[in-house]
Amino acid sequence: TRTLDLAVIPGDGIGIEVVEQGLLVLDAALAGEDVTVRTADFNLGAARYHATGDTLTEADLEAIRTHDAILLGAIGDPSVPSGVLERELLLRLRFTLDHYVNLRPGRLYPGVASPLANPGEVDFVVVREGTEGPYVGNGGAIRVGTPHEVATEVSVNTAFGIERVVRDAFARAAVRPRKKISLVHKHNVLVHAGHLWRRTVDAVNAEYPDVTVEYMHVDAATIYLVTNPSRFDVIVTDNLFGDILTDLAAAITGGIGLAASANINPDRDANGKHVAPSMFEPVHGSAPDIAGQGKADPTATVLSVALLLEHVGMPDAAARVQAAVAADLAERPVLSGRVRSTAEIGKELAARVAG
Amino acid sequence: TRTLDLAVIPGDGIGIEVVEQGLLVLDAALAGEDVTVRTADFNLGAARYHATGDTLTEADLEAIRTHDAILLGAIGDPSVPSGVLERELLLRLRFTLDHYVNLRPGRLYPGVASPLANPGEVDFVVVREGTEGPYVGNGGAIRVGTPHEVATEVSVNTAFGIERVVRDAFARAAVRPRKKISLVHKHNVLVHAGHLWRRTVDAVNAEYPDVTVEYMHVDAATIYLVTNPSRFDVIVTDNLFGDILTDLAAAITGGIGLAASANINPDRDANGKHVAPSMFEPVHGSAPDIAGQGKADPTATVLSVALLLEHVGMPDAAARVQAAVAADLAERPVLSGRVRSTAEIGKELAARVAG
Ligand SMILES: CC(C)[C@H](C(=O)O)[C@@H](O)C(=O)O
Ligand SMILES: CC(C)[C@H](C(=O)O)[C@@H](O)C(=O)O
Repeated sequence: TRTLDLAVIPGDGIGIEVVEQGLLVLDAALAGEDVTVRTADFNLGAARYHATGDTLTEADLEAIRTHDAILLGAIGDPSVPSGVLERELLLRLRFTLDHYVNLRPGRLYPGVASPLANPGEVDFVVVREGTEGPYVGNGGAIRVGTPHEVATEVSVNTAFGIERVVRDAFARAAVRPRKKISLVHKHNVLVHAGHLWRRTVDAVNAEYPDVTVEYMHVDAATIYLVTNPSRFDVIVTDNLFGDILTDLAAAITGGIGLAASANINPDRDANGKHVAPSMFEPVHGSAPDIAGQGKADPTATVLSVALLLEHVGMPDAAARVQAAVAADLAERPVLSGRVRSTAEIGKELAARVAG
Repeated sequence: TRTLDLAVIPGDGIGIEVVEQGLLVLDAALAGEDVTVRTADFNLGAARYHATGDTLTEADLEAIRTHDAILLGAIGDPSVPSGVLERELLLRLRFTLDHYVNLRPGRLYPGVASPLANPGEVDFVVVREGTEGPYVGNGGAIRVGTPHEVATEVSVNTAFGIERVVRDAFARAAVRPRKKISLVHKHNVLVHAGHLWRRTVDAVNAEYPDVTVEYMHVDAATIYLVTNPSRFDVIVTDNLFGDILTDLAAAITGGIGLAASANINPDRDANGKHVAPSMFEPVHGSAPDIAGQGKADPTATVLSVALLLEHVGMPDAAARVQAAVAADLAERPVLSGRVRSTAEIGKELAARVAG
């Protein structure tokens, strides 16, 4: 019997509701397999912060580290000053566990409406760098609150950090039918970081001669995402551009209620064991306006569970979850007005997975 | 007789073609008025760079400064290393002439197709900060070309720089029917710069109590631009976010062939004279792939000419240009296949303006 040890961080707002359904579907997906799922809940987010002042302690981190993977709902609440939970909890997890591949599929499932008049076939994946760029928290301010305030934000980019994520992107592109990489940056303005990205992509491309590479500026990328999203196969880009493009990608493929993500540390030790747990989370946030009302769509979390199963080496279970979601989405147009609660969608997906 | 002294920078690629048509329409718009237009052409861009090595000399700048306004086509050519012309010419003009208001209307004209299935009424304006943020060129790299390379890009933000552009945005919002400002940033990650923007907007809002303010993260803004662009009235944002959002805005309102922009320095001296010429340019680039073929749409340049006329205090002429463009766009659907050249569109617009 294999054991799957999950650290579960429901977090804030609708995070709590969607994670519950994600776990339900996970259990259903593994029902037929010889796997025992063990979950440990971590009380992190606004409630914990207000109760204890803690965002993420060393002890939390040490405990989380022992698990095979992390399922996270959403982090953020208007009652906590902006940036505190994001930086000290969510980004701290991504950075400390070295989740350098932030993987975000952009796929328009049959039956799902897009705001685009002619979306075409949309099926790409964004490989967003997850541990550097403008997200490093390397900024500051002087003379705060005076007319002479100066605030800086420093984007830090390293050959080491870019090369490893670019390699991951090429490895993914190489096994996809179209074998195409779009590097997105803004190297005509951010010349130092941009040229480092470009040179790195060119160097790795030499090892993957059958992978086609195109470059586009981030502003142009937003244009293509709405006029011709089919042109994309694998997009590789920095932390901030990836943040922006993946919300846009979610919007054109049915909304953030469907957008899954994986924060992956692909590295393994000498025994082939992952050096740190990867973290799976819906792209949407905590949505305080609809929290606790059973209105959230758990589908993004369920698709993130599929990415989790794939990452821990259970591709069949992952495929069952994917297929259940695809079938559910395909039938949504004929639901005609029947509004399902978070729990109903979760239950129906679990039933489909159990099949 | 009033004189309008224009510095004309056709620049590279299609810039040359569209500027010619822009000037034709400008002449037509002023035909009935007691205005003499004087233009001085500045040979700047790739050709000059290859011939002399110069991007923008002090002498060029001094000469440009003496004019009432600048009409610019496009800058950039693949034969010049990326970033050279952008940073040393285009951005140098914006920074040296202190064009702190980069104004970019996002308007879907009747008759124009949007890639969105249900765009609704789209009529907003983006006030993009033009002189600081990640565009300051304050970055560098060490150990270039080695596995230990580190490249940084520093976003510099000042209370002075943000307050003046925020004031401009409020002044614009206050005279629009909806009186609404959307501040776009990413203050949950870029906390120092983001909080400075937020505090500044709140402070200026106190002087404009009838203007409504909403805040949204840049990633969320891209979602709303494709799912509900009608919600926007005035968007105020930093240099990089403004770059990204305005290309997306152009895409949903018919493409960058129609997107106008103004780089404005609104400041005046004691005599009421502008302290520096503002610069008017289409959002599109030099498009080397179609350059010299008469395929470029000069409409974005013509609409930029309208912004120019408004800026120099000729609102009636500006309105005539706007109206001519609107009429031309409204008739495009019935052109049914008749493809017009750059010069034909320019000539027809000029005729309408004169008409
Ligand atoms: C909450 C925020 C810090 C986060 C990010 O910017 O990465 C979110 O927008 C995301 O995309 O996961
Ligand atoms: C060419 C480039 C430097 C420029 C910018 O980034 O500002 C362009 O994209 C624009 O939007 O005017």
